[in-house]
Amino acid sequence: FPTLKVLSLNSNPELAEDIADHMGTTLSKCTVTSFSDGEIKISIDESVRGYDVYVVQSTSAPINTHIMELLIMIDALKRASARTINIVMPYYGYARQDRKARSREPITSKLVADLLETAGADRVITLDLHAPQIQGFFNMPIDHLQGVPILANYFEKKDFDDIIVVSPDHGGVTRARMMADYLKAPIGIIDKRRPRPNVAEVMNIVGDIEGKTAILIDDIIDTAGTITLAADALVENGANAVYACCTHPVLSGPAIERIDDSKIKELVVTNSIPLSESQQSEKITELSVAPLIAEAVTRVHELKSVSTLFDNT
Amino acid sequence: FPTLKVLSLNSNPELAEDIADHMGTTLSKCTVTSFSDGEIKISIDESVRGYDVYVVQSTSAPINTHIMELLIMIDALKRASARTINIVMPYYGYARQDRKARSREPITSKLVADLLETAGADRVITLDLHAPQIQGFFNMPIDHLQGVPILANYFEKKDFDDIIVVSPDHGGVTRARMMADYLKAPIGIIDKRRPRPNVAEVMNIVGDIEGKTAILIDDIIDTAGTITLAADALVENGANAVYACCTHPVLSGPAIERIDDSKIKELVVTNSIPLSESQQSEKITELSVAPLIAEAVTRVHELKSVSTLFDNT
Ligand SMILES: Nc1ncnc2c1ncn2[C@@H]1O[C@H](COP(=O)(O)O)[C@@H](O)[C@H]1O
Ligand SMILES: Nc1ncnc2c1ncn2[C@@H]1O[C@H](COP(=O)(O)O)[C@@H](O)[C@H]1O
Repeated sequence: FPTLKVLSLNSNPELAEDIADHMGTTLSKCTVTSFSDGEIKISIDESVRGYDVYVVQSTSAPINTHIMELLIMIDALKRASARTINIVMPYYGYARQDRKARSREPITSKLVADLLETAGADRVITLDLHAPQIQGFFNMPIDHLQGVPILANYFEKKDFDDIIVVSPDHGGVTRARMMADYLKAPIGIIDKRRPRPNVAEVMNIVGDIEGKTAILIDDIIDTAGTITLAADALVENGANAVYACCTHPVLSGPAIERIDDSKIKELVVTNSIPLSESQQSEKITELSVAPLIAEAVTRVHELKSVSTLFDNT
Repeated sequence: FPTLKVLSLNSNPELAEDIADHMGTTLSKCTVTSFSDGEIKISIDESVRGYDVYVVQSTSAPINTHIMELLIMIDALKRASARTINIVMPYYGYARQDRKARSREPITSKLVADLLETAGADRVITLDLHAPQIQGFFNMPIDHLQGVPILANYFEKKDFDDIIVVSPDHGGVTRARMMADYLKAPIGIIDKRRPRPNVAEVMNIVGDIEGKTAILIDDIIDTAGTITLAADALVENGANAVYACCTHPVLSGPAIERIDDSKIKELVVTNSIPLSESQQSEKITELSVAPLIAEAVTRVHELKSVSTLFDNT
């Protein structure tokens, strides 16, 4: 690709290198550090004039710094005459602030879309948005990749018999259905309900769990409260074994402790957000999205369809 | 002011309270915290519908968090039907990235202006921009307040005889001239020069220092390297005593240690950036910009001129 350059910011340097590698190229040189007072300092150490530039950055923690790094890099690339500026964002943060749930709330995920556009981004390539509606927050083209095939492929190789794919809440049923299609398995739903106000929630399970290997699937696991309680409920209801998986391992606060102490046998995640040192656990298996993203970037650059990557027929 | 509300974010809560106090009002209730994963969580705890809202926030360290707090608050206020959203920003960070000094550099201070506009800000009230040209980065009205009168007033009361006001570099001469006008004193300039490449800088002093009380003035003191070296040069050249002052005490890295160990007798700053616990020093005197900002906000709200506040005749 003589007209393409791939740049990495600070969220996912290893993934970015893997992506470049899969594309048969190397990362372009840039340095993203900070001045003594904490202001971000960027230098792009080779010409980008006339190039289609792909910038790899997840808006994971420290989220506000990662967003500003990205905006400032976009500004620098624009002023350096890049032909197009394409954002490769494996994890789109602030996605849970996607509507006014209460009065006077911000809609931060729309705000971030507008900020990217203002800075000068031309396109976004992202993975498993918390809500697919966020695509509509962008006025630029957005390619929306799916992590489910990667997760499903991993479990397929395990060759479990008698699987059930379980969504830990109502919001995730479509995702569980997609996973179940790949694994040719039935689905279950954890149906949380508060019988009366100020009474503890009851965890009902919709679907036949008894004697089965349950695979919980979610898009984001943050504090891991939902997923570990769901695992408890599944075991209580006779599941043989409980596995869990998600695309985006946010894993904040008590998450690792909860997972280690839980009935979950193994948690399978992708590297859309890299695991920090304090997020290591023997239970966690990390799968790489580098081949998927490399393929998507290549297709985008060659003006080929990205969505056909996910035709599951 | 029945139609005005003042809100504080996390950079300057005490200053914001003082501003409201000087205006005879109180801060409106809002909570700005973060979720477990570090995403900013905002709630505005009273109606702002139809109000002119003034949001107090400096983009001081942690700068990227402070910028995002501000942008998200603007988004929330806009969606909550505030009539106008006015940003009271005592310190405008990223101001030193105001031009491409090298190839492929960002112009972050223009970017931040664009981000504020995109989020929905209607007006900015700020103090001593590092470069007055930054006013032109905004397409909305911007009121530019001056800290020099406050600093000058403090030194006036000391009743020194034989003062000289000194700029620590060429860029600050206009500011030193303004201060000198207030104090009816002459000016001096520290004239740094590198005689040949790869040779140490020479500190020349333009102006007659001998036997005088020198007052160094700058807009920002960051790592305090420039100002403490300037103080050394002044003492070596026969100054009686050296004072220093600035509007924005960034004071990062080794700043406090350098000031404590320096020949500077007293450093006078404003509370445009509050001093953190690790920034305490017996040499530092902090003056409040609350009366000035309260007066400016009141004038803006009553559609009166702000610039006449600084007619020095
Ligand atoms: N970073 C976050 N961590 C935890 N909760 C959040 C976060 N951002 C937004 N929320 C809340 O999560 C809810 C939306 O989540 P969901 O229903 O899964 O889309 C809203 O009530 C938000 O207030
Ligand atoms: N936060 C910062 N800390 C230190 N230097 C900076 C910072 N931001 C920008 N600069 C550099 O300061 C120079 C501009 O400073 P000035 O000449 O005082 O306007 C440029 O070379 C910038 O690269």
